[in-house]
Amino acid sequence: MTRLDAPPPIRIGLLGFGVVGGGVVRLLSQKAGAIATEIGRSIVLRRVLVRDPGRSRPFDLPEGDVTTDAGAILDDPEIDVVVELMGGVTPAAEYIRRAIRNRKHVVTANKDVMATQGVDILQLAREHGVDVYYEASVGGGIPLIGVFRQDLVANEVHQVHAIINGTTNYILSRMAGDGVDFGPALAEAQSLGYAESDPTADVEGIDATYKLAILASLAFRTQVSPAAVYREGIARLRAADFRYARELGYVIKLLAIAKRHPGARGAGAPGARSTPLTQGARDGGAPPPTDETAADEIEVRVHPTLVPQDILLAGVNGVFNAVHVRGDLVGDVLFYGRGAGAEPTSSAVVADIVDVAHNINAGVANRIPFHYAGRLPIRPIDRLETRYYVRLWVADRPGVLGQIAQVFGDHQISIASCIQKETDPSAESAELVIITHPAREADMQASLSTLEALGTVRELSTMCRIEAFA
Amino acid sequence: MTRLDAPPPIRIGLLGFGVVGGGVVRLLSQKAGAIATEIGRSIVLRRVLVRDPGRSRPFDLPEGDVTTDAGAILDDPEIDVVVELMGGVTPAAEYIRRAIRNRKHVVTANKDVMATQGVDILQLAREHGVDVYYEASVGGGIPLIGVFRQDLVANEVHQVHAIINGTTNYILSRMAGDGVDFGPALAEAQSLGYAESDPTADVEGIDATYKLAILASLAFRTQVSPAAVYREGIARLRAADFRYARELGYVIKLLAIAKRHPGARGAGAPGARSTPLTQGARDGGAPPPTDETAADEIEVRVHPTLVPQDILLAGVNGVFNAVHVRGDLVGDVLFYGRGAGAEPTSSAVVADIVDVAHNINAGVANRIPFHYAGRLPIRPIDRLETRYYVRLWVADRPGVLGQIAQVFGDHQISIASCIQKETDPSAESAELVIITHPAREADMQASLSTLEALGTVRELSTMCRIEAFA
Repeated sequence: MTRLDAPPPIRIGLLGFGVVGGGVVRLLSQKAGAIATEIGRSIVLRRVLVRDPGRSRPFDLPEGDVTTDAGAILDDPEIDVVVELMGGVTPAAEYIRRAIRNRKHVVTANKDVMATQGVDILQLAREHGVDVYYEASVGGGIPLIGVFRQDLVANEVHQVHAIINGTTNYILSRMAGDGVDFGPALAEAQSLGYAESDPTADVEGIDATYKLAILASLAFRTQVSPAAVYREGIARLRAADFRYARELGYVIKLLAIAKRHPGARGAGAPGARSTPLTQGARDGGAPPPTDETAADEIEVRVHPTLVPQDILLAGVNGVFNAVHVRGDLVGDVLFYGRGAGAEPTSSAVVADIVDVAHNINAGVANRIPFHYAGRLPIRPIDRLETRYYVRLWVADRPGVLGQIAQVFGDHQISIASCIQKETDPSAESAELVIITHPAREADMQASLSTLEALGTVRELSTMCRIEAFA
Repeated sequence: MTRLDAPPPIRIGLLGFGVVGGGVVRLLSQKAGAIATEIGRSIVLRRVLVRDPGRSRPFDLPEGDVTTDAGAILDDPEIDVVVELMGGVTPAAEYIRRAIRNRKHVVTANKDVMATQGVDILQLAREHGVDVYYEASVGGGIPLIGVFRQDLVANEVHQVHAIINGTTNYILSRMAGDGVDFGPALAEAQSLGYAESDPTADVEGIDATYKLAILASLAFRTQVSPAAVYREGIARLRAADFRYARELGYVIKLLAIAKRHPGARGAGAPGARSTPLTQGARDGGAPPPTDETAADEIEVRVHPTLVPQDILLAGVNGVFNAVHVRGDLVGDVLFYGRGAGAEPTSSAVVADIVDVAHNINAGVANRIPFHYAGRLPIRPIDRLETRYYVRLWVADRPGVLGQIAQVFGDHQISIASCIQKETDPSAESAELVIITHPAREADMQASLSTLEALGTVRELSTMCRIEAFA
């Protein structure tokens, strides 16, 4: 393939040789010809950092040496692009920084690093004239980062609603479609390799908070910390919740939600206030509110959510992911695909490598700078206003429903509908499902505390927020 | 906003000032600050080509002169980017070429030009060192062109299934959801401004063939002519078809379908054979088949299609569009949003303008060259193999069903299921709906001809292909 006048190959150093790393190596080898045609030169894998060089691999490493010494990649002047696929913050973040300081471009799939340190790393890359690409950090093979940075650039993004954890979506789909309860659905996901033996990060919504932090930071040109995302997992849901939800016209999804609420001055124009990172506004935060203006606030939360049956997100099942974005110009757009797996993730990593290669060919870096608009205040969950679904077991005797309605009423919460079907004669209990009109979270939490203290309430089983997509 | 050391503004010449043109002008004005922040310099509208300068506009043109002389834009050395929003091939294609020859970048929403002359225009742009962007030519505000050119670049695309005409999707959604017949649904679409007074281009699927030609050309790195796309419109569908489809577990959509069929040598590696345009392979076509290899073929068709109820495309309703892509690495991905309208389309046009501005800032053009893999043979519709839905009225007497089954059997078509419900006693007719197992189009057409000649067949009402999404 190589012609005498062809430019020299682009040399890759790979950090991490797990499932995705192996997929990338296989892909770079299998599609070497197509990739060379696309970028007009070849890509060679110069070195791979592994933890255990003795471990047997599904295939030999082509054209690459295996090393356990990160410096042999990070400090090698022959390497043009460092592809970081180790995962976790330590030591990946420091390796990424060192690669940048050594003027290497970086392609990473690391959600932990980009969610917690993304703005700083993009800033460092800008200072050193190199590119950092991270399309594979969210949504596997679904184009998202490039879409926010380029395609939606003219939009003010109002809302993001995302199913960005395939493990929990698989479990919820099984519970909804087949009446399986949480425990067996989780066990099944584990046996299929969709859930890890310690499923906490997925099931408790932690993974989703990192991905939402990345998406919200991009959408609102800010830095949202994963720790700032309100979070509830799916472990409390029961098969009964899915039956009731269906009856009421809903499905239950673990949604990652980000919304921007305009300050008092009106709809806002975030771009107009944003400042390139190099102008030092990064630590300045949002402009201080004056008498006439209040800063925009953002709302970021991950929790099981009742979603109307007839919207597209409701039809996203199994391990698939989908991100629904509402912008002021495009209106509603949705991006759907496999959020994980060696092949989809490798597809995103290699697309990033190819884009970096185009930049190297053109002699440019930071062609599209990330503009940071300052830190935006996070609206506390207490101030959320939404409709609620509450399932509880109460004493099966006259006057109890009235007593419960009274508690909600005392907290300014109005009941929209109520279902009572199941009874447990031995325990003299009845199952009650209540849907509220829009109410404030603080009032709902206060109501639930009051209810819990009532002798007639046997169990507060489930509380779910309802997303209207109005 | 302007600082003394700021680079000079980027100057736009706009061709066409209709709905989308007006939207772009409004957007460039309303978001001037945000756009200037994004690209580090301002964008000014220098001149607008209009047909009738006397016509009243919803707003004044800011910083721009109105002209009826295209040369005042195309030949103005002060203009950096020509934004072509006239539509139609003549004179738009010639204007685009003249702009390129005068070394202006071009942003266009023109599906007619890009579908019929896209490869040549991209080639001309490459020769003259300028960029041509055309995201708005397909799917309004849905990111598609950039997605194919960048995000999916590592994939071999196997299939595209698209709902890319909002007018027909609105009509079909009304027919499906509310039992409205074609005529009233069309009239309603017209009264809402979703359909033109002459709806032919939408209703007959012509618009969709142009958009499919663009998508298939990108997906397969070739040039598919809209004329090569097999096409049927939606005017023959009746409310009854939607009732039967629902009963059978399907919805009816006007799908634009593109598939790549590997030649005898196997799955193929199109990229490996692709050649940059400048290497003169453009007119060479596909490599000649040898004894061992046969060229890949592509299948491109637009027609009403029965789609399983439970897939995501089936839930795309109203004027929304969606494009479902299957690639060898990403598997299934889907992109959804508004396919038309001033704001979504302006969003795409302005995103393209911003991207061109980034290129101007970086001093690059053709950063991502379009690699043409040669002309691929189109598989004739006769060789299609799929399942079919056939609705027909037959004489209501014994033996007729057997006679019809016999005709299909004589043509190697096996019937999977049959519904007979409606009868018209006055005409002694019965309505019959037949679903076949996979069969060849040529055999189906021959069967229909034979059936039509039978005295017992009163009317061949509808024939629809079924897409399995296996």
